[in-house]
Amino acid sequence: MHAYRTHNCAQLSADNVGETVRLSGWVHRKRDFGGVLFVDLRDHFGITQIVADEDSPALAVLDKLRAESVVTIDGEVKARSADTVNPKLETGEIEVFARAITVQSAAEELPLPVADELDYPEHIRLKYRFLDLRRETMHRNIMLRSQVITSLRKRMTDQGFTEFQTPILTASSPEGARDFLVPSRMHPGNFYALPQAPQMFKQMLMVSGFDRYFQIAPCFRDEDLRADRSLEFYQLDFEMSFVTQEDVFQALEPVLAGTFEEFSGGKTVTKSGDFPRIPYAEAIMKYGTDKPDLRNPLIISDVTSHFEKSGFGLFEKIVGGGGVVRVVPAPNTAGKSRKFFDDMNNWARSEGFAGLGYVTRKGGEFGGPIAKNHGPERMEELYNELGLGPDDGLFFAAGKEKDAAKLAGAARTQVGEQLELIEQDCFKFCWIVDFPMFEYDEEAKKIDFSHNPFSMPQGEMEALETMDPLDIKAWQYDIVCNGYELSSGAIRNHRPDIMYKAFELAGYDNATVDKEFGGMIEAFKLGAPPHGGSAPGIDRIVMLLAGEEAIREVIAFPMNQKGEDLMMGAPSKATPAQLRELSVRVIEQPKKES
Amino acid sequence: MHAYRTHNCAQLSADNVGETVRLSGWVHRKRDFGGVLFVDLRDHFGITQIVADEDSPALAVLDKLRAESVVTIDGEVKARSADTVNPKLETGEIEVFARAITVQSAAEELPLPVADELDYPEHIRLKYRFLDLRRETMHRNIMLRSQVITSLRKRMTDQGFTEFQTPILTASSPEGARDFLVPSRMHPGNFYALPQAPQMFKQMLMVSGFDRYFQIAPCFRDEDLRADRSLEFYQLDFEMSFVTQEDVFQALEPVLAGTFEEFSGGKTVTKSGDFPRIPYAEAIMKYGTDKPDLRNPLIISDVTSHFEKSGFGLFEKIVGGGGVVRVVPAPNTAGKSRKFFDDMNNWARSEGFAGLGYVTRKGGEFGGPIAKNHGPERMEELYNELGLGPDDGLFFAAGKEKDAAKLAGAARTQVGEQLELIEQDCFKFCWIVDFPMFEYDEEAKKIDFSHNPFSMPQGEMEALETMDPLDIKAWQYDIVCNGYELSSGAIRNHRPDIMYKAFELAGYDNATVDKEFGGMIEAFKLGAPPHGGSAPGIDRIVMLLAGEEAIREVIAFPMNQKGEDLMMGAPSKATPAQLRELSVRVIEQPKKES
Repeated sequence: MHAYRTHNCAQLSADNVGETVRLSGWVHRKRDFGGVLFVDLRDHFGITQIVADEDSPALAVLDKLRAESVVTIDGEVKARSADTVNPKLETGEIEVFARAITVQSAAEELPLPVADELDYPEHIRLKYRFLDLRRETMHRNIMLRSQVITSLRKRMTDQGFTEFQTPILTASSPEGARDFLVPSRMHPGNFYALPQAPQMFKQMLMVSGFDRYFQIAPCFRDEDLRADRSLEFYQLDFEMSFVTQEDVFQALEPVLAGTFEEFSGGKTVTKSGDFPRIPYAEAIMKYGTDKPDLRNPLIISDVTSHFEKSGFGLFEKIVGGGGVVRVVPAPNTAGKSRKFFDDMNNWARSEGFAGLGYVTRKGGEFGGPIAKNHGPERMEELYNELGLGPDDGLFFAAGKEKDAAKLAGAARTQVGEQLELIEQDCFKFCWIVDFPMFEYDEEAKKIDFSHNPFSMPQGEMEALETMDPLDIKAWQYDIVCNGYELSSGAIRNHRPDIMYKAFELAGYDNATVDKEFGGMIEAFKLGAPPHGGSAPGIDRIVMLLAGEEAIREVIAFPMNQKGEDLMMGAPSKATPAQLRELSVRVIEQPKKES
Repeated sequence: MHAYRTHNCAQLSADNVGETVRLSGWVHRKRDFGGVLFVDLRDHFGITQIVADEDSPALAVLDKLRAESVVTIDGEVKARSADTVNPKLETGEIEVFARAITVQSAAEELPLPVADELDYPEHIRLKYRFLDLRRETMHRNIMLRSQVITSLRKRMTDQGFTEFQTPILTASSPEGARDFLVPSRMHPGNFYALPQAPQMFKQMLMVSGFDRYFQIAPCFRDEDLRADRSLEFYQLDFEMSFVTQEDVFQALEPVLAGTFEEFSGGKTVTKSGDFPRIPYAEAIMKYGTDKPDLRNPLIISDVTSHFEKSGFGLFEKIVGGGGVVRVVPAPNTAGKSRKFFDDMNNWARSEGFAGLGYVTRKGGEFGGPIAKNHGPERMEELYNELGLGPDDGLFFAAGKEKDAAKLAGAARTQVGEQLELIEQDCFKFCWIVDFPMFEYDEEAKKIDFSHNPFSMPQGEMEALETMDPLDIKAWQYDIVCNGYELSSGAIRNHRPDIMYKAFELAGYDNATVDKEFGGMIEAFKLGAPPHGGSAPGIDRIVMLLAGEEAIREVIAFPMNQKGEDLMMGAPSKATPAQLRELSVRVIEQPKKES
């Protein structure tokens, strides 16, 4: 017989009744019925009920053991009586009568209970992560993560991608977020950097001729933390050669749709091939954001032209000053109190906006100061144009275009949530496309890159030479799910001549480009294929599928929000000898005044 | 038609003759036959021959382009005439007559040719790795690496393992090799460490109840470099709960044997289930090393007892002083000159040994000073005992046991190579088992751990309490292939009481154990399963399968032996602002005197 188990704790059924078995696992729960002890023995696979009575030497041992002790039980499989069968348990038809017991590990008192998933402070959960991970939800989340990654891998391979590892000890990148630095012992005064993303390497793999690359890539950014960000995170990094933007979409859609369908637990998922492509300008207009949650049916409209001349002086003034007026419908709100609308206005102020105007309507009758001043006929005209009905309210976001769009977008979410319009039980994907290549930097009073300087401008060299830079779009795109940006991506600019020209338009001369991005330019001068890719965030994908709000719930050993690993005690002091070897010294911190 | 290609460069065959196609790729080779130009167009998949003559506008463009430029060719598939069919090429039945060409990327002069794999200095290859990786051998090696890893993953999953990621920013470990440190910005004066291996985390995963873990794990050691070592490397890290050593072997053998069989290119591989288990002491005795190359048929023997009283005074003296005499046969060396034997002795001296004695034998006649002094009858007796024949030579390694074993092991390899006895075209695996738990530290004059303090001693507590520590074996094992140690591994000591006792025998009190390994001990006090694992080195596995001598040949973007990434320019100076944010300062190096 095996030293530890003949079966795992999810394997035994009525078929095994009468067999002598050996099981190992954790003492999940004990129930004492005076002389008869029932123990739920738990392992990774499931739970089996163990019974010990006064005939069994296991009774006294089990009696003394604390929960979460690890034991090996030798026993006999018995059928449960009909009234004690537990249909919820895989092994619920049987129990194992203990003949002998070996204690593999006697647990001391627990700082965190496992069997009942009581809410516990996060710092306890993280310090004793090995207990936290035994709990059902966390155990399931981490297994889900593994399954999702396995599924992503398989689907990428099915799409013709090959996985390559890229270096983790690498060079500091000249732009982007803050790097983690690693002092080099062999080269005193010099530092490696951890990759914020394998961007350079994946492009180099394309220049090396490896057609389709992917990697479940660890990435590192030394940025302040929040619920959906950690210092160390994983992305489904990929890149393809000889492709258009549409090829990238066609490669990724089956991967994302397929993985989500596999793990959505019955929620509907946008079908591969049906992911809407929404131009950036349209997204800002209709959803007030480039990360639209398409589960929300509300659509923002621009009604600026209606207020060029209006009895409502505030809007007239805003429009006269070049501003815009955007509206978010609030359907079927005839029954809502004045407070509902005022609360919305207060919410907008609490979010830092000037305020959110509104019009109420009940049975065709308008209410509120905007309607009063603008006049009911002209309001009716507006409503007809928007296709709104006699019981629909309307919220107004007015101001400079950027501000009004942002407020309208936030109001769209808020109204959608308040009115419970957000469709549940679905994952809605979309691509945001046609990002502007350049934008006007109000502070620096100059044209600069809008997002990514390394994306290929649509129209390539001809566009750069002939168009107003602010009208040029980039082959750049975001993939969004339920309002979460999973990743941006782009068709890259692989042409040094177009690169120099694009930087010139943004005010950088060739020498600066060569200095900052010389490595990439040099590689592109030695034969580079057109290429593009993206890098959906894996932690976020798992978070969405697990229905969690924080990525720490889907990472086995996460840091806390202060960047500390409480279980391992990182970061920590280094020894003077270590620092000497690395040729670095710690700068003492000035004592903070109280 | 697709913007870049209707087919890749390995797809067209006689079936496509007459079709209009579009291909994209690199200009691999050009051959000019005065007015007719032949171009080998290469992509990731293969090569297709392009033809352009004076009727084609592509001729003038191709004529001017340098090798490695990237082009898109529109053309017509034509059958090659019977005498120009190239059976070595997948597309060798056809060629594509170019009608139009688009230059995607015009290459400048190359620092490293791609088409012919001329030997080039490594620093050029690494600086222009994106060119080096286009070369056939490197391209194939990197693809092999990906395929091997995919195969390992699949086989691990088939064995019931689940892949989990463990943190890369973590805590410094209190023992082992030198850590890479990462200054924490949020916690001035504190440092993360990069993992030398996810040892703690994989054990914590077992304590968390995840039965079988694996990971293609990046590991980091700040050690000086050599051909088979890099600062950053990958291991097939795995761990299992409720297992004996034999379970670990049974889980890993099909993974390794299967992967090697898949990629061995016809070489034979030790069958899963047939990996020999060789006790450490036996390996040292028979092979002079715990990393035996079993392709070498030579076996070392101990002949100490023969020289207790010998005419050969040197050996008699060594044996009298507690030393040993070991021999390596040199079969069928009757035809070898005196020089062959003397060269072996010189080789041993050049390796730092005192020298390698020998006996020659031709047609039964012994030669050399050892035979002469020891006497032919006693030599014959020795030969009979060893089963050696009338034309076999014999090499002698004498000295303290450790030194003699080491010399005999090196001599076994040298003799095997010189006599071309090493079997080619096979991968021979073995397990080395029964490592001693403790050893006597001659310098410190005390008992200390022999290898890994965290392995479970065989016999557990009872052994520690009752046996001579130097007789206690550990549940620790190495997996060796063709003389390369792929990994060590162990059944871990998961019992705090046994851990304290083992450390006590090595002279460490409980307080020290708690201080150094408190995190692990604490976890083990809250319910830990028996567990064990191993972590075969992936770079070495791929190196063996690729038939390469350096791991840099199987890593896409390796550092050079000085720990520099010549392509990315790492490591490099940090800016003063970066260092300030990290609260570290560089210690200026004293100028070296000339």
